[in-house]
Amino acid sequence: MTGLVRFGISTEKDLLAKFDRLMNDRGYTNRSKAFSDLVRQELVKREWTEGKEVAGAIIMIYDHHKRELVNKLMDIQHDFNKVIMSTQHIHLDHDNCLEIVAIKGTAVEVQKLADILKSVRGVKHTTLGMSSTGKHI
Amino acid sequence: MTGLVRFGISTEKDLLAKFDRLMNDRGYTNRSKAFSDLVRQELVKREWTEGKEVAGAIIMIYDHHKRELVNKLMDIQHDFNKVIMSTQHIHLDHDNCLEIVAIKGTAVEVQKLADILKSVRGVKHTTLGMSSTGKHI
Amino acid sequence: MTGLVRFGISTEKDLLAKFDRLMNDRGYTNRSKAFSDLVRQELVKREWTEGKEVAGAIIMIYDHHKRELVNKLMDIQHDFNKVIMSTQHIHLDHDNCLEIVAIKGTAVEVQKLADILKSVRGVKHTTLGMSSTGKHI
Amino acid sequence: MTGLVRFGISTEKDLLAKFDRLMNDRGYTNRSKAFSDLVRQELVKREWTEGKEVAGAIIMIYDHHKRELVNKLMDIQHDFNKVIMSTQHIHLDHDNCLEIVAIKGTAVEVQKLADILKSVRGVKHTTLGMSSTGKHI
Repeated sequence: MTGLVRFGISTEKDLLAKFDRLMNDRGYTNRSKAFSDLVRQELVKREWTEGKEVAGAIIMIYDHHKRELVNKLMDIQHDFNKVIMSTQHIHLDHDNCLEIVAIKGTAVEVQKLADILKSVRGVKHTTLGMSSTGKHI
Repeated sequence: MTGLVRFGISTEKDLLAKFDRLMNDRGYTNRSKAFSDLVRQELVKREWTEGKEVAGAIIMIYDHHKRELVNKLMDIQHDFNKVIMSTQHIHLDHDNCLEIVAIKGTAVEVQKLADILKSVRGVKHTTLGMSSTGKHI
Repeated sequence: MTGLVRFGISTEKDLLAKFDRLMNDRGYTNRSKAFSDLVRQELVKREWTEGKEVAGAIIMIYDHHKRELVNKLMDIQHDFNKVIMSTQHIHLDHDNCLEIVAIKGTAVEVQKLADILKSVRGVKHTTLGMSSTGKHI
Repeated sequence: MTGLVRFGISTEKDLLAKFDRLMNDRGYTNRSKAFSDLVRQELVKREWTEGKEVAGAIIMIYDHHKRELVNKLMDIQHDFNKVIMSTQHIHLDHDNCLEIVAIKGTAVEVQKLADILKSVRGVKHTTLGMSSTGKHI
């Protein structure tokens, strides 16, 4: 936690008006918050490419009827217990499950886990939501 | 759930070898699963651009010390209760929280919710993990 | 062309230091230019999702030895002459050509052209570089 | 150039029908070409993250009225002449230019060039279209 600073930015009048309109559409009520978010977005992108510790979520859709699938996913998740913080499970319908695995670790470890989960028969889709530990942004 | 079909694909010998190597690196043990996943990945991308019902997660990092933040996030989430299935909360360190909101709804509604959460002061980063209801993939 | 305006932004001291470092790494010598670029980047993203007129390039790799390929690509490009501004062709090696097609039109037309080019036998890879007409950014 | 091979894939009947429909929409007339393209798309992604030699284009929008801009861009491009293959220039309107720089080199060199061009005052937008030398796909 650090103090606030105020600094000036020069930009074209037109561009500033477009910025205000765009940010207003997205729900912002002041420019400072919008500016800070644009900066943090770039910082988080860099954390993922520079091998720093990251956090986020692996989001999976699977059909729990597939034989042995649930046990296999459980085994894999236990092998990666250092990277996995907790798991949220939702029964989407009779067949489909949505499982959201909160992760923290290096980008390489997390990607490895996502790849392994994706390759399991019965897992239909896996995506990696890339966020941050919050420490450096 | 439908039956399996088998069909033939012609491709260059070289390209098939590269496919095998790439998929092997990602943990796949057979081509059929790897092929199906590439197809589903494209189908999910399309669900998000075509206004279909989608599922996934909004991943947020915030500093819970900011005054009124926690109440504000709670209020917003209640306003969007039709889109939100459940929420997973992780205390990353003394300051930072990781909150993962499982969502299901149209891409427009979900994006709207993500935008609103992002604009709240104290929320440092928001990202949208785009997955599927599983019904059409 | 409009005049310049100057306005103030408040942000955390730490975040501003990180912004300065990141932008310095990317070659910026002042914050105003870096800020304006972040804004324009968001504006261009929106032009592509909102059906506005856009500009950019379709980048293709193909093997010119494939029978009939060159004629076919020529025919397609003529069918889309309203969208295509000019084409740059590079002989990468004995087999591979890089062709870069400068485009201007609606996002839908441009995507349609990219899809058609991609589906031609002999075309190995197609990607769409998304930029702007510059008028509204 | 290598010979063709034919191999079998098993998949769910439903998924195959969806694949056929999706690929048909994108202009494909046979599954083999569509399959090969999905594979090559993954291979190209990997070339860009693994430090291999890549090719593609840097796409820039700039306002040529800005003082010294044109000379500065020329100087930078000469400094990177090993990476730049050729340049395509289009006069979009009275103010805006679209310049498309065909590049070949390591991902790091190319990204460096893109960053430097982006930071020049008067350059409104820069994007990097990521393609391949075609040799390994």
